[in-house]
Amino acid sequence: MLLERDLIQSTGFRNVREGADITGFQFRLRMPSYRGMAASLIDGVAVRVGDLVDVAPDVPLWTLQGGTYTLQQLWDSDGARWPLEDAAIVTVPFPGGLPDGIHEVSIELRLRMSYIPLEHQPSTYRVSRHITLTSEEDGGPFRYGVSLYSFMHDFGTVLDLETALAAVADIGATGVEILGEGHIAAYPSPSTAWVDEWFRLLEKYRLEPTNYGSWIDTRLHSSGPSARDLTAIEGAGMLQRDLRLAKQLGFRFVRPKIGVVSSDLVPHPIWTESVERSLDLAAELDVVICPEIHAPTPIKHPVVDDYIDLIQRTGTTHFGLLIDTGIFQDRPIPLRPGELPGQRPAFLDGIGVDPADLQGIGEYVVFVQAKFHDIDDSLEDQQIPWEPVLQGLKDAGYSGYLSSEYEGEREPWRSLEQVRRQHSLMRRIASRLN
Amino acid sequence: MLLERDLIQSTGFRNVREGADITGFQFRLRMPSYRGMAASLIDGVAVRVGDLVDVAPDVPLWTLQGGTYTLQQLWDSDGARWPLEDAAIVTVPFPGGLPDGIHEVSIELRLRMSYIPLEHQPSTYRVSRHITLTSEEDGGPFRYGVSLYSFMHDFGTVLDLETALAAVADIGATGVEILGEGHIAAYPSPSTAWVDEWFRLLEKYRLEPTNYGSWIDTRLHSSGPSARDLTAIEGAGMLQRDLRLAKQLGFRFVRPKIGVVSSDLVPHPIWTESVERSLDLAAELDVVICPEIHAPTPIKHPVVDDYIDLIQRTGTTHFGLLIDTGIFQDRPIPLRPGELPGQRPAFLDGIGVDPADLQGIGEYVVFVQAKFHDIDDSLEDQQIPWEPVLQGLKDAGYSGYLSSEYEGEREPWRSLEQVRRQHSLMRRIASRLN
Repeated sequence: MLLERDLIQSTGFRNVREGADITGFQFRLRMPSYRGMAASLIDGVAVRVGDLVDVAPDVPLWTLQGGTYTLQQLWDSDGARWPLEDAAIVTVPFPGGLPDGIHEVSIELRLRMSYIPLEHQPSTYRVSRHITLTSEEDGGPFRYGVSLYSFMHDFGTVLDLETALAAVADIGATGVEILGEGHIAAYPSPSTAWVDEWFRLLEKYRLEPTNYGSWIDTRLHSSGPSARDLTAIEGAGMLQRDLRLAKQLGFRFVRPKIGVVSSDLVPHPIWTESVERSLDLAAELDVVICPEIHAPTPIKHPVVDDYIDLIQRTGTTHFGLLIDTGIFQDRPIPLRPGELPGQRPAFLDGIGVDPADLQGIGEYVVFVQAKFHDIDDSLEDQQIPWEPVLQGLKDAGYSGYLSSEYEGEREPWRSLEQVRRQHSLMRRIASRLN
Repeated sequence: MLLERDLIQSTGFRNVREGADITGFQFRLRMPSYRGMAASLIDGVAVRVGDLVDVAPDVPLWTLQGGTYTLQQLWDSDGARWPLEDAAIVTVPFPGGLPDGIHEVSIELRLRMSYIPLEHQPSTYRVSRHITLTSEEDGGPFRYGVSLYSFMHDFGTVLDLETALAAVADIGATGVEILGEGHIAAYPSPSTAWVDEWFRLLEKYRLEPTNYGSWIDTRLHSSGPSARDLTAIEGAGMLQRDLRLAKQLGFRFVRPKIGVVSSDLVPHPIWTESVERSLDLAAELDVVICPEIHAPTPIKHPVVDDYIDLIQRTGTTHFGLLIDTGIFQDRPIPLRPGELPGQRPAFLDGIGVDPADLQGIGEYVVFVQAKFHDIDDSLEDQQIPWEPVLQGLKDAGYSGYLSSEYEGEREPWRSLEQVRRQHSLMRRIASRLN
């Protein structure tokens, strides 16, 4: 397990219940010193939350290594410790709790260092951070999940598998999506130990595997003197390898990302045969193959017609459509420093598909990747219009997972807080739909 | 294991030998995509190193999952993969190798993505970074180690124990120093599994435990209505707890950080009795207790006289002095943004102890923490004058460990590269001393 670099962790910010009552809220703090220390060296933490909460250093309760203490109890304790490797849980009594959404949490933490002259004591840490409360909204009719794709570049550098899954569960999500060649160590042949750990973590964090991302790499052999295209049989072999591995790990959907042959993402012609050769296996494993509808491809497009045609032609129930909500983006992603308009694919400005277009294809939509890029401190998404999108999905009869795909800026740890924001935002909107 | 966020990793940058000859150099690259991929999708990497090296994309060799390939062999491969979780090792033929020191390494890496329109292919990654070659210098008469203190705030957020120890070993260091309450999970009672893992890692990375940092927390009970000082018996209990744990983990030195009672770090008076009560145990365990001489305390100071007096009075061979090289700092640490002169302890400007002062105490010095703050891209230390410091240590007869204590800016991952620089710098200077 790893901790976020900020002292105030975003994972763990939640209201606290005793029976039916919300009695307060809690958040997690990383030890600011370079060492762990005995709990009696803590001189309390003052906490402010926006204009709502302002409590003195002796008010919050401390949970350390499973035990909960008042400040006086910390001072009297012997053997209780705040280790470097574990965040302390700070609980603030606040009957009724905090409202859903983003809050500016400010702390003044005091620790006594025996080895620093008294005139510089206690060591005082004042920090402030906007973090998002785990949502209390039901969020129906949808289910809520996260793709580990959201943690791109964080995974393997600041997040290990357990830290990532703990963060997903902490938002109140119940589903986890992965990329096979990305999140499975030693893909495509994970060790038994890895598979055992996968199921241990799913159980510990009460998560179910949802969708598994794979690739049909049509350009696998397209460089060098003996360059050639992938054959349909090879494509089917790739897909079937991932169907089996996905099933072994408990997934119900596999999204093959198929190589393309045009600017508007027309898939390589081998896709049909590769898929059709795999439908029996998909049925046997009861795993649904679902290519994504992804910008710049809109819903009303020959590619989507072809997918639906395959379903109608074969009568399969193990092939469907995955909607990437990036197709609904109606405002541009800001240019990066030094980037000029026209230097990047035009679809990054947003192709603005009308969510009402979902109506015609509702029966074929089996999974939704809730793509997004930036949700600001006011809980406003800067690119995706969630209210019409979620209304469109509901109207189309969709009640499956909304699986977060954060695709914005990649400052380390930013993805964790952005995904929290998205779930708070989507649950709030979903709970108020017609 | 975790990877650095930069594509070009600093850990792993080294010359390559075949028998007696240096045939080239190598460095490690993190996969820039969000997925791992088949090795045949790699379209090579061009490499430049300053004005010394400039090779085309098809020249470097690739080591992936233990196998080494030319670019053509990658294209022909089937089953070879560049996983997200493992850095690729890029080896550039360069007879004689690179000279010791910091180099600007630039790459242009090309990967083929089947799912991106051809007009945007191959995906090309151009990055450049100053990284430090693992030094080839002997560095005698000293031995070289690293304190995990150097990785403060990185440890537990971007470094796990194995990644940290691998980085230490990669510099060519043979010794590792830890802080007991900091780097031992569940201190003071690590699990058997943790202890087994500790010894497995030491063996894997060929490291020996050197010094173990502990605390005598004299202010343990100094808050609250029943505030009181620590007793000498309690202080001895703390010290003995750490002596035993240090011994269990293979350490030969324990540095107790003793609570202070004055601005110039005079230790709490219980120190003498706490130590004297522990000397028999230290002898029994063959562990040397060594408090640090740390700025603002210079060498010529009553505190040091008292330590030496204890040695002379008791005749112990299990008590000695630890020199923190911060006492030799002769240029100020830059003010932080918004910090005003006078707002911080004066010793941060440097107390500039004359390294010649080591002459009088050489026989008592058992360990050196090589404190430093910033080594720039020209391999110049901005605060510590290493040439006179190392000459002073050599002249005083010291031939033990120089154990890095990086104490500079804490941008994530910076510590890894700074410690590499320090070892390169110290080895170069040490090898040229009179």
